[in-house]
Amino acid sequence: MGEQSANSEQRLSRAAAHRLSLYLRCVASWPADGGKVSSGRIAAAVGVSDAQVRRDLAALGHLGQRGIGYEAKELATAIRAALGINRTWRAVLIGVGNLARALLRYQGFRTQGFEIVGLFDTDPGKVGQVVEHLTVESSAKLGERAVELGAELGVLTVPGEVAQGVADVLATAGVRGILNFAPIVLRLPPTVRLVTVDLAIQLEQLAFLVQHGDNAKATDD
Amino acid sequence: MGEQSANSEQRLSRAAAHRLSLYLRCVASWPADGGKVSSGRIAAAVGVSDAQVRRDLAALGHLGQRGIGYEAKELATAIRAALGINRTWRAVLIGVGNLARALLRYQGFRTQGFEIVGLFDTDPGKVGQVVEHLTVESSAKLGERAVELGAELGVLTVPGEVAQGVADVLATAGVRGILNFAPIVLRLPPTVRLVTVDLAIQLEQLAFLVQHGDNAKATDD
Repeated sequence: MGEQSANSEQRLSRAAAHRLSLYLRCVASWPADGGKVSSGRIAAAVGVSDAQVRRDLAALGHLGQRGIGYEAKELATAIRAALGINRTWRAVLIGVGNLARALLRYQGFRTQGFEIVGLFDTDPGKVGQVVEHLTVESSAKLGERAVELGAELGVLTVPGEVAQGVADVLATAGVRGILNFAPIVLRLPPTVRLVTVDLAIQLEQLAFLVQHGDNAKATDD
Repeated sequence: MGEQSANSEQRLSRAAAHRLSLYLRCVASWPADGGKVSSGRIAAAVGVSDAQVRRDLAALGHLGQRGIGYEAKELATAIRAALGINRTWRAVLIGVGNLARALLRYQGFRTQGFEIVGLFDTDPGKVGQVVEHLTVESSAKLGERAVELGAELGVLTVPGEVAQGVADVLATAGVRGILNFAPIVLRLPPTVRLVTVDLAIQLEQLAFLVQHGDNAKATDD
């Protein structure tokens, strides 16, 4: 965790970005007392050190005042800008199963600036269905429709064996980032960023932590 | 990534454990040529350096031979032991919505040694329903039933506002690890380990990576 960039938010590591996400969640959920929040309160809620919070937030620019704390609204705005969620991201979702339905109903997506603008599935029985106000389209049209819809991100909730093919179509269509729930390691061109949410791996991490108890380094990033 | 423990798998960091999970996925999915796999092949598939793979696997004991590679079956067994998934973990799941149904149908859980032994929900309309061969029980009975079922892990797919209460009940019932999908930071006693899968944060990480392009450090742990 040695990243203390002076003023360059571009240098944020993913670990730091992850902590900023957690800070934002706290700040956004608290009723701000007179509009101020302290680094100590954020640190206690997230489970990192006060110094770590102050270092992370210092990297965003001149925000807080010693002994006074941070202006909650200003802090939230600065974190959103650093993370790149001070705008709306248009995303397509491929594979309309239970996980997709759970994601579509998840309030967090829209409030954090992510808008699902298209749903795709290979199953003819699902194509044409309306799910959460969107009509499921055929995956055969994914490439051209992703371009038409101006999709920047893709969410993959397809089985592992078809995920690479879908990812290739998205990459060709100009999608810049993929959130992958399929349990495989995707190969993508360097222009396309990838975040994988592998549920079995998460459970394995939990088993690892439980098994090794206090000997495991339990940092959550 | 400075963790190169000599022989102490207890010293594995979470980052190393995460890489081991990825290696295991590769090894388990490949048809082994004559039973051997090379560190280079694993490295290419997972996207880390050859040296990193060899270092991580060296920490598991004497497994490979220079120029010959690793015995695939032996390697998988060693990784499973290091991660703590060379046994079955009994888990209860609380909150039977779309996400829960997706998890229950997800093959990866059972094959990796995780068995869901109980389902719980507060909704009287869901209690008594059979979902994937399990009858949904009332959350009011969670504490006593978790003990009876011998649950070691809990999977939380409940709304954020009730997650802490459910986690407290699980902790009191002796559950040792919680996989939390609720978008809040849970407070748990030190005896209970926590892995949080926060979907909005994953999407924020993706936005961050796309926004910052090549300037972001893109390591996936």
